[in-house]
Amino acid sequence: MARRPSDPTGLHRVLDDRLVLPQAAQRLDTARELWPDEVRIRTERLNLDAASFRQLERTHDGDGDRVRAAVLDIVASRGKMQNPETGSGGMLVGTVEEVGPESPLGLQVGDRVATLVSLTLTPLVIEDGLAGWDGRSEQVPCDGYAVLFGRSIAAVIPDDLDPALSLAVMDVCGAPALTARVVEEYGASGRPTVAVVGGAGKSGSLSLAAARRAGAARTIGVVPNEREATLLKATGLADEVVLADATDPVALRDAVAGAGGPADVTVVCVDVPGCEGGAILATAEGGTVIFFSMATSFSAAALGAEGLAADVRMLVGNGYVPGHAAFALDLLRAEEGVRSLFEGRLEP
Amino acid sequence: MARRPSDPTGLHRVLDDRLVLPQAAQRLDTARELWPDEVRIRTERLNLDAASFRQLERTHDGDGDRVRAAVLDIVASRGKMQNPETGSGGMLVGTVEEVGPESPLGLQVGDRVATLVSLTLTPLVIEDGLAGWDGRSEQVPCDGYAVLFGRSIAAVIPDDLDPALSLAVMDVCGAPALTARVVEEYGASGRPTVAVVGGAGKSGSLSLAAARRAGAARTIGVVPNEREATLLKATGLADEVVLADATDPVALRDAVAGAGGPADVTVVCVDVPGCEGGAILATAEGGTVIFFSMATSFSAAALGAEGLAADVRMLVGNGYVPGHAAFALDLLRAEEGVRSLFEGRLEP
Repeated sequence: MARRPSDPTGLHRVLDDRLVLPQAAQRLDTARELWPDEVRIRTERLNLDAASFRQLERTHDGDGDRVRAAVLDIVASRGKMQNPETGSGGMLVGTVEEVGPESPLGLQVGDRVATLVSLTLTPLVIEDGLAGWDGRSEQVPCDGYAVLFGRSIAAVIPDDLDPALSLAVMDVCGAPALTARVVEEYGASGRPTVAVVGGAGKSGSLSLAAARRAGAARTIGVVPNEREATLLKATGLADEVVLADATDPVALRDAVAGAGGPADVTVVCVDVPGCEGGAILATAEGGTVIFFSMATSFSAAALGAEGLAADVRMLVGNGYVPGHAAFALDLLRAEEGVRSLFEGRLEP
Repeated sequence: MARRPSDPTGLHRVLDDRLVLPQAAQRLDTARELWPDEVRIRTERLNLDAASFRQLERTHDGDGDRVRAAVLDIVASRGKMQNPETGSGGMLVGTVEEVGPESPLGLQVGDRVATLVSLTLTPLVIEDGLAGWDGRSEQVPCDGYAVLFGRSIAAVIPDDLDPALSLAVMDVCGAPALTARVVEEYGASGRPTVAVVGGAGKSGSLSLAAARRAGAARTIGVVPNEREATLLKATGLADEVVLADATDPVALRDAVAGAGGPADVTVVCVDVPGCEGGAILATAEGGTVIFFSMATSFSAAALGAEGLAADVRMLVGNGYVPGHAAFALDLLRAEEGVRSLFEGRLEP
């Protein structure tokens, strides 16, 4: 049977009646045979999205066998791991098994990789019944295969770092890359002041390091409590560390102002709703707010800026910037402060 | 009694126990006496947000007297017109009654103005019991007063245009101003191709005119059906007019590509959910998507771009850009095509 030609977005594997993107699809084609621009990965481990795993755990009363059965059922029926309730997926680790002759990803057979696109759009077949998983953790040992499209992203896991550390960095690597790009736009002429809300977190600490490396005149880390302040101060990643509740717009504005603000660039890295107003007020006229939090409300940002007559540019934090994984891993290697924060957060 | 000093965002009029911005406040201080940076407006008409009015109408079974009583109750108890169910407000038209000595807004007593900040953050007192309103339309004749803060925005209604036309333009004036700014960033060296999704609408037609004036090399208007295509073609505002369902990512991508795309700048002006993927796919690598639709999902945009490995800059359409109202009114005056579209949409 003739196959339809491949599309770099993976449209050729969508089995729904209405042609939608793979992420929106009900079911994907998991044929083992590759289209010319695809790559097949032998899976080693799935890393389920935390929100998805918690939902499954709640629904099945924490019964690991039932959780495992639910994941097997989802993957068998949809051809991908996308929790129908949360809509979310996760990422996977594995080894490159076959590379199509027209794949643009630059991968070699045998490379150990992490996929940086979501499991929600990745064709997946589980071959071991998840026999090695007790259903009680987001980390799922899994023998099977997954398929990457022409436009998918996968990063080779470096040999010199603990794989868990590499994965934690890759998971948030869009934030430092985009922060660096925005800071670099200022050039040498007007080096900006950069405030990172949630500066002691994973994406926050990387963003602080990226901002300084990209030429920020001053970096301000905003944290919610003394414990985080102590952690961040010890790393030296921020010129100033200030305490503020990011959901209190006046407190956030005043904290950043008191540390040498307003900021020319404000980076929001805390996953709580209601930070839009404070981020806008903490930012100078003509400045930029980058929202990396998935808790960001589009309308709160748009209407908030209008209501404050705030002439600020607001960016949706795109998780993809070319070279983002390598850049973030380099920051981790070069910045002892970033590394110590990450290693501290990985400890059980 | 000593008053607390004024804040340009209006914090000094928030009566809630927890200090929040006026838009988030439960109740505002409507004292007639102005702080030095404020302006008082004698109201003439409230223009209720459509979603808010429809909610009130539904709740009160279309009984105009009950709808009127509900609006009076909200304004009396909250000190502002903010529908507790929808969270939305509207705008107002009136005449400047008093200008505080430190007001930065540049208004004069007697100016007839429209407020361009939401009623959800505007202190308001109704003095006529809304006697001139039957409770059956979003247009509410209203004698009373409202207060503008240092950072509020109000635009003088021009003498040379039908006030209804001016208000319709001011309602969407952020879109053409931001579109022009983004197009101008390209400079003469690399004039961009600009696609406007929803090009025959109010914000869409203004954005097309703004893009061309700002130096776009080519403008593409995307519309959902033949009727809109005919309307838009007649105006000459777009170099190309193409049909596509904006919620079908592949159709949108292919339509823009077929009209000379991908676009360097894609402007989303249609208020339906699910346009994020198509807008991203219609945009060239390194290009920009500006989302003006309030139906935009932050996570769909962020995860969509990541899932497609799309290196596009995504902007939250800020409704405020300095000079936006005057710029949009100038476009309307200069572009017969814009004017005819607006006048056509104002007809009952």
